[in-house]
Amino acid sequence: MVEERQISQAVIRRLPRYYRYLGELLENDVERISSNDLSKRMNVTASQIRQDLNNFGGFGQQGYGYNVKYLRSEIGKILGLEVNHNIVIIGAGNLGQALANYASFEKSGFILKGLFDVNPRLEGVSIRGVPVRMMDELKTFILENDIDIAVLTIPKTKAVEVAEMLADTGIKGIWNFAHTDLHLPKNVIVENVHLSESLMRLSYKVERYQEESNK
Amino acid sequence: MVEERQISQAVIRRLPRYYRYLGELLENDVERISSNDLSKRMNVTASQIRQDLNNFGGFGQQGYGYNVKYLRSEIGKILGLEVNHNIVIIGAGNLGQALANYASFEKSGFILKGLFDVNPRLEGVSIRGVPVRMMDELKTFILENDIDIAVLTIPKTKAVEVAEMLADTGIKGIWNFAHTDLHLPKNVIVENVHLSESLMRLSYKVERYQEESNK
Repeated sequence: MVEERQISQAVIRRLPRYYRYLGELLENDVERISSNDLSKRMNVTASQIRQDLNNFGGFGQQGYGYNVKYLRSEIGKILGLEVNHNIVIIGAGNLGQALANYASFEKSGFILKGLFDVNPRLEGVSIRGVPVRMMDELKTFILENDIDIAVLTIPKTKAVEVAEMLADTGIKGIWNFAHTDLHLPKNVIVENVHLSESLMRLSYKVERYQEESNK
Repeated sequence: MVEERQISQAVIRRLPRYYRYLGELLENDVERISSNDLSKRMNVTASQIRQDLNNFGGFGQQGYGYNVKYLRSEIGKILGLEVNHNIVIIGAGNLGQALANYASFEKSGFILKGLFDVNPRLEGVSIRGVPVRMMDELKTFILENDIDIAVLTIPKTKAVEVAEMLADTGIKGIWNFAHTDLHLPKNVIVENVHLSESLMRLSYKVERYQEESNK
């Protein structure tokens, strides 16, 4: 069992990346790996890796390295991936459909149960076997289908209202792609993906690099 | 003019959010705002705001607050948004199309010049007036159209190869949605959007909250 400690946000941000690399190693039939080898692949220092993984009691053995399968499964548990999460996507436009089509989410235990939209032309359209439903069915659907997580891929003008309705259903998490911040009770965890902010960070770094190299 | 200093990654991560809030204020015809008012809206401390903005010489005046338009335009300059960036999207599937349809990127100076895919059925399909072109035209197109930034919305199996080709063209930045890390020369800035990692962070926080509240 993994010991409970206060884990820093920075470590939590890095955990999914460990999970991804360990998954790739496993796909390539690598059974064990040293922190040095993992560090080269991941382009972080070996001491960072050891420190990060020590947060969870440490999984490595001196002279042996890490057991890839075991370490990945333990990190999976920490990330809450050993149980399935039922999800709905609200907003079946291009972005919602793109997310609905990511079969790899399913592999990590995120099971798409429903797709919702306001556009009647989308009613009945199915993506990976999941039909698009209209918004007036959303509340009942969430309550009856044990939905944990809602993915919001709707315009920001509608997002606040829908998020508040979701909070009323007792949903546990919202993955928010709408370009606005949601202020909800603390029992509803919100993870934002503000794409345009990510693009601006890229632009910032590009400009800085150009400036530096023109000096 | 903005003074050049070493600015922390954390501040840079926050800048686009300031930019967004200031844009919303401007849309609502708010001309000036105190750090206290801005802090309430943004749900961060006023002292954090003052500190962050002091990195750029500080734009506030005692007793007056911040001039919204001026501050937004200065932050825009810092983010490299006062010049246009020509972009191409590589991968015209759902995600690529979703990004191509975000007219708001254009408002921030990211001008969609080209869309590329390997799927011949998409050839000639247009999104917001931009036709999908085939991959064999990509290299020439980038060189002839002064493209700064490529958006990679292709599967990870193809991403590495395409990214290396992009690097050869002298592209300045890659906005990478492929689920893999790119190792490129340092003159090519890469900003990753690893969506499944974001979803795992949400799952982590949901699980932690449930555990805490069950104690």
